[in-house]
Amino acid sequence: MPVNLHPIDPFQLKTVAGVRLGTARAGIRKPGRRDILVIEVESGSAVAGVFTSNRFCAAPVLVCREHLHSSETRYLVVNTGCANAGTGDEGLADARTTCQELAQLAGVESEHVLPFSTGVIMERLPMDRLLAGVAGALADLEKGTWADAAEAIMTTDTQAKAYSIQARVANSNITVTGIAKGAGMIHPNMATMLGFVATDAAISQSLLKGLVKEVADASFNRVTVDGDTSTNDSFMVMATGRASNAIITNETDPAYAELRSALIQVALPLAHAIVRDGEGATKFITVQVEGGQTIEECLKVGKAIAHSPLVKTAFFASDPNLGRILAAIGYAGITDLDVSKVRLSLGDVLVSEHGGRAASYQEEQGQRVMKEAEILVKVELGRGSASTSVWTCDFSYDYVKINADYRS
Amino acid sequence: MPVNLHPIDPFQLKTVAGVRLGTARAGIRKPGRRDILVIEVESGSAVAGVFTSNRFCAAPVLVCREHLHSSETRYLVVNTGCANAGTGDEGLADARTTCQELAQLAGVESEHVLPFSTGVIMERLPMDRLLAGVAGALADLEKGTWADAAEAIMTTDTQAKAYSIQARVANSNITVTGIAKGAGMIHPNMATMLGFVATDAAISQSLLKGLVKEVADASFNRVTVDGDTSTNDSFMVMATGRASNAIITNETDPAYAELRSALIQVALPLAHAIVRDGEGATKFITVQVEGGQTIEECLKVGKAIAHSPLVKTAFFASDPNLGRILAAIGYAGITDLDVSKVRLSLGDVLVSEHGGRAASYQEEQGQRVMKEAEILVKVELGRGSASTSVWTCDFSYDYVKINADYRS
Repeated sequence: MPVNLHPIDPFQLKTVAGVRLGTARAGIRKPGRRDILVIEVESGSAVAGVFTSNRFCAAPVLVCREHLHSSETRYLVVNTGCANAGTGDEGLADARTTCQELAQLAGVESEHVLPFSTGVIMERLPMDRLLAGVAGALADLEKGTWADAAEAIMTTDTQAKAYSIQARVANSNITVTGIAKGAGMIHPNMATMLGFVATDAAISQSLLKGLVKEVADASFNRVTVDGDTSTNDSFMVMATGRASNAIITNETDPAYAELRSALIQVALPLAHAIVRDGEGATKFITVQVEGGQTIEECLKVGKAIAHSPLVKTAFFASDPNLGRILAAIGYAGITDLDVSKVRLSLGDVLVSEHGGRAASYQEEQGQRVMKEAEILVKVELGRGSASTSVWTCDFSYDYVKINADYRS
Repeated sequence: MPVNLHPIDPFQLKTVAGVRLGTARAGIRKPGRRDILVIEVESGSAVAGVFTSNRFCAAPVLVCREHLHSSETRYLVVNTGCANAGTGDEGLADARTTCQELAQLAGVESEHVLPFSTGVIMERLPMDRLLAGVAGALADLEKGTWADAAEAIMTTDTQAKAYSIQARVANSNITVTGIAKGAGMIHPNMATMLGFVATDAAISQSLLKGLVKEVADASFNRVTVDGDTSTNDSFMVMATGRASNAIITNETDPAYAELRSALIQVALPLAHAIVRDGEGATKFITVQVEGGQTIEECLKVGKAIAHSPLVKTAFFASDPNLGRILAAIGYAGITDLDVSKVRLSLGDVLVSEHGGRAASYQEEQGQRVMKEAEILVKVELGRGSASTSVWTCDFSYDYVKINADYRS
C-alpha cells in the first residue's frame, strides 16, 4: 500500500509546448499493457541527464552518454519489461539498433535518439516486438498524453507518477511537467529509477547540463529505500525554449535560480512518490539534519539513518528506538563529532541531548510520533549552519516477501 | 535457527595458564542467569584491544581506552543485560565506579580494570546489583570455567560461543582460548559484539597492540549481518607469557606470524559463530573476492555484496539472482572497474563473464548452489592479485520480525 500517494489527475498534467508523446502496447513482457514511450522534442531544445554511477550500467545508459556527448537530442525512447542490463556486447548492439530504427522512421540521425530500458535484467530485448512498438509509438505522437506516458514506463509501481506546475521565470510563464517510475530499488529485477521532466523554458544546452545535476541532487539523490544503486537509473530534463523568457545562458542570472526552483518543485514530489510507492512501505520518513559544518556531512548522517535496516524496522514497528538512530549518527563517518552537542527529535519531541536521553523525554511521546504515517526525524549536529533532508520509508515484512518471492 | 552452529564442548576448552575466570548471577536484567564475568590476568601479561569506531560509543568503551593507555591490565569485568550506552555523564561515572569497586576488592588500582557492558541501551546500570555481582564473580575465580564465561556474556545469542586450540610458536606449545557474543547487530538493543581471546604465549605489550588489530581485521572485521556498527563492540587479546616461547618483541620474528595465525584460528570461528547465530539467518555465505589491485578494493566489493538487502533476500529465497550481485559489484566504489573482465561464480558454477550471463550457465545449476546452507560467492575482478573474504548470512522474514517485535 503506497503511503499517502494519490492517483495522478490527468487534467492536472499540463502539456509542454515543443514536446510530443507517443506510447504503444508492444508486449515486451506482458501482453496488452503500455510498454513503449517515445518523447519527441523540437529541434533546438536543450536536453541533459544524469545516470547511474554503477559500473555495471545498462547498455542504454552507455548509448545515452555517447549520444548526449556527440549531438543534440530529438527523441527519447523508453521500454519497460526488459532492462537490457548485464547483456554484454549483444545488449549494446540492441540499444544501438533501437536508435537506428527510430531515427530512420523519424528522419533523423541515430545520435539524435536516446534509449532507456527498465525491467528484468540479464535478458535480451525482444527486438522484433520492440521495434514494432517503436513504430506504433511514433504513430501515436499526435495524441499521446503525459498520463499515458507515465503509465508506459511503470514496472511494478502500484501507481503511475506524474506532476505538473506552472511558474514564473524571468517574468514569463513557464510550464514544467514530469513523470517518473521506480519503487526505490525494492523491485530488484526491475530496479530502475527513471525520471523525465520537460519544460518550455529557454536555457542553453551547456547550462542545462549543470542544472540537471543540481536538480537531481535536490530530489532523486535525496531519497533511498534500501541503498542499492541500480544499473539503469536515469534522470533527464528537456527544455524546449518555447516559453517567452530570454534564454538563460549564465548561472548568475536570477532566472537560473527560478528555473531550478521550478524544476525541483516537480522533481521532488516525483522522488517522494517513489518512496511512498516502495512496496512494503507503511511510513514516509523525512530525516532532516541541521547544524552541520557542510551539506556533505549532513547528508552522510541523513543517509546513515535512512539506510539502517535496524532504524527502518523500528519505524515499521512504531518503536521509538532511539539507540538505533543515535548509533547510525555515530557511525555516519563524522570522525570529530562531539556527541554531547547532538540533539535528536522525533517530530516535535526532543528525545536525546547531552549524549543520552533527554530529561524531559517520555516514551509515550515518542510512541505517539512513531505511529503516524508521516514521520520527521530531526538531527541537530551542533557544529555549523549547514542542513539538508533525505527521505525514506520503513522496512516491513513485505520488503522481504516481495524480494524473496519475486522470481518464484 | 543458527546455521551449522554446534553447542560448545566444555571439555574442548583449554585453560590458559595465568588466566582465571569468575561469573555471577546478579539479576541485572533477568533473575537467575549468569550475567557478570570477571577475567583476571596475571601481573605482567600483555593486554590490548580494538573498539567500535562509533562516535556514540558506550561509557565502558571510553573508560577502556583511558585505562589501556595509562596502565597495565589485571582485570576485565563484563556485564550483560545493560549496555551503559547513550547514558551521558552518569553512565561514565557508573563505569568508573565499577572499576573502582572491583579494584578495591582485588587490591589493585582502578586503572588496572577494564569494563565492558552489553544489553539494552539508554538505560542506567543497576549499580547495587552490579557491584554485588562483581564481588560474587571475584569469589568465583577459583572455579570459573571458559564455558561459564561464554554463557555469562550472552544476550540474545541462542548459543554460547567459545573455541580453543593448541599451537606451536617458536617451537613451544601454546594455548589459545576465546569467547565471543553477538548476533551480528541483529539484536539492536543488545547489539554489541564482544570477543575475548587469551593465550599463554609471550609477546610484548607494544607489539600486541598492533597484533590485535591484525587479528580483528582478519576475523571480526570480516563478518557482517546488516552493516550497522554497534556502540559497544570490543575485541580483546590477553597474553600471559606463561608458555615457554621467548618473548616476541619484533614483528619480523617468525614467531609473530605463528602467533597471529594461532589467534586467527580462534578468532575466525568465533566471528563465524556470530554470523551463524544471526537470528533469522538460514544461510552462511562466504564472499570471496579475488584479482583485485589491493585488499581494500576486494573488501569494498565483498562488503557491498554482503550488505545488500537485495542480495541477502535473494539468498533467503534460494534465488540465483545474479543481477543483484553484479549491481552490488558495480556500485562498490571501484570507479575504473572494467566489468568485461569480471567473473562471478556461485560455488563451482561460473554464472557471469564478459559483462553478462556466462554462455555455459544454466539457471538450474545456480539454483542448486543457492539451496545449500553454506554458499560460496566468488568474484574475480581481473585487475590484480589481491584477494580477501567476508562472511555474512541471508536476510529473512525473521530478521524483520525480531527487530520489529523486540521491544513490544
